[in-house]
Amino acid sequence: MRATGKLIGVGVGPGDPELLTLKAMRALAEADIIVHFAKAGNGSNARAIVAQHLKQGVAELPLYYPVTTEVPKEDAAYRDAIAQFYETSAAAVAAHLDDGKIVAVISEGDPLFYGSYMHLHVRLAPRYPTEVVAGITAMSGCWSSVGAPIAQGDDVFTVLPGTLPESELQRRLRDADAVVVMKIGRHLPKIRRALRETGRLDRAVYVERGTTADAVIAPLLDKQDDCAPYFAVVLVPGWERPQ
Amino acid sequence: MRATGKLIGVGVGPGDPELLTLKAMRALAEADIIVHFAKAGNGSNARAIVAQHLKQGVAELPLYYPVTTEVPKEDAAYRDAIAQFYETSAAAVAAHLDDGKIVAVISEGDPLFYGSYMHLHVRLAPRYPTEVVAGITAMSGCWSSVGAPIAQGDDVFTVLPGTLPESELQRRLRDADAVVVMKIGRHLPKIRRALRETGRLDRAVYVERGTTADAVIAPLLDKQDDCAPYFAVVLVPGWERPQ
Repeated sequence: MRATGKLIGVGVGPGDPELLTLKAMRALAEADIIVHFAKAGNGSNARAIVAQHLKQGVAELPLYYPVTTEVPKEDAAYRDAIAQFYETSAAAVAAHLDDGKIVAVISEGDPLFYGSYMHLHVRLAPRYPTEVVAGITAMSGCWSSVGAPIAQGDDVFTVLPGTLPESELQRRLRDADAVVVMKIGRHLPKIRRALRETGRLDRAVYVERGTTADAVIAPLLDKQDDCAPYFAVVLVPGWERPQ
Repeated sequence: MRATGKLIGVGVGPGDPELLTLKAMRALAEADIIVHFAKAGNGSNARAIVAQHLKQGVAELPLYYPVTTEVPKEDAAYRDAIAQFYETSAAAVAAHLDDGKIVAVISEGDPLFYGSYMHLHVRLAPRYPTEVVAGITAMSGCWSSVGAPIAQGDDVFTVLPGTLPESELQRRLRDADAVVVMKIGRHLPKIRRALRETGRLDRAVYVERGTTADAVIAPLLDKQDDCAPYFAVVLVPGWERPQ
């Protein structure tokens, strides 16, 4: 048995299994245990991305969110349940690290960019050898699928959560050259209004499941309905033409 | 001979050759010609990253910038020289595409995120079959090397070019949760002052050649001198502690 284990946060990219890095492949080959987050009752997206690359019979530790959108985030019950969940999850991972295991936590996109892995990282990295393998972000996968140059030269680039109030979305849309709006879901009508109000609706592109076989890509102007998954993104490219 | 060629913009990541994706590897294997941008007299960084993965004897087309920092960007002579350069480069690539070749333009980081590839893309993608392979961005490589959770939850994330005026840097540093400042070089003293003025110097991390063997990573507070390459970055993480 090894004296001490290692924690690896592994970015597995935006969905296309070919967008795994060589380093992620090595981490999957090295790992004794694969950890993934998922909504209870659903499979983990990250696990689906790497499924074909997992070692036969490798141990897995799925971590199921106790709540997702059933309880409002402002609610103390939500905050308590989530905080408790991350503490328990970190303890479960720590037990394997204490046992000398190499633990790979697979994360959609990039582990340190709006990902659940961070909640384990801040609790465990101070105590265990830790490595983070960068991954292709969802937004990067999306603008590549679309073929939309997103930012160039002295552009200011901003990522806005669609959860922001409408006035705040407007203000920030006016203040940035290139924008990606994440966390769309039920916020789509508000986001669409803010884009129209700031004269940026014409160039906005809606992307669902970017880089996967069933990707949906359309000018936002052409999307008539208000149905969007939480993980859809809206791209507002900043760069118009070559100088 | 193929009837028509294909243009592939290939992101090769931030520096570590292991951060190439499987898709980038496939593009390198498929390509008839490898195109790369470089400063005259220097080798291409992108080429150095993929060197060990290039097919023996594959054709290459290096494109040398006619000017970089010798002439101010505001100067008409600079703008003319660069515009002419991109037109000539696009024509050279088009000749190979007309000849039925698969042309891979390798790009450090992500091809559509502040990269030179875009100048070819906007000129050629309307006329030829084109594919873009997303790459790990320099900033993503940097925060992974540092192990710094950069953005979480409802954080607003912003990329600021260090070339912005000091007052503008200050205003935008006050207005974002998480920030990456790019294009450092001679702008470092100004960037440091703006961070101090806005109370964000304490958490700022300076990164040079992130993800490579000779990476320099230090709290910006500890960096005493004003020497920084143009491609260094400063990270200002937005997320303090687990909820």
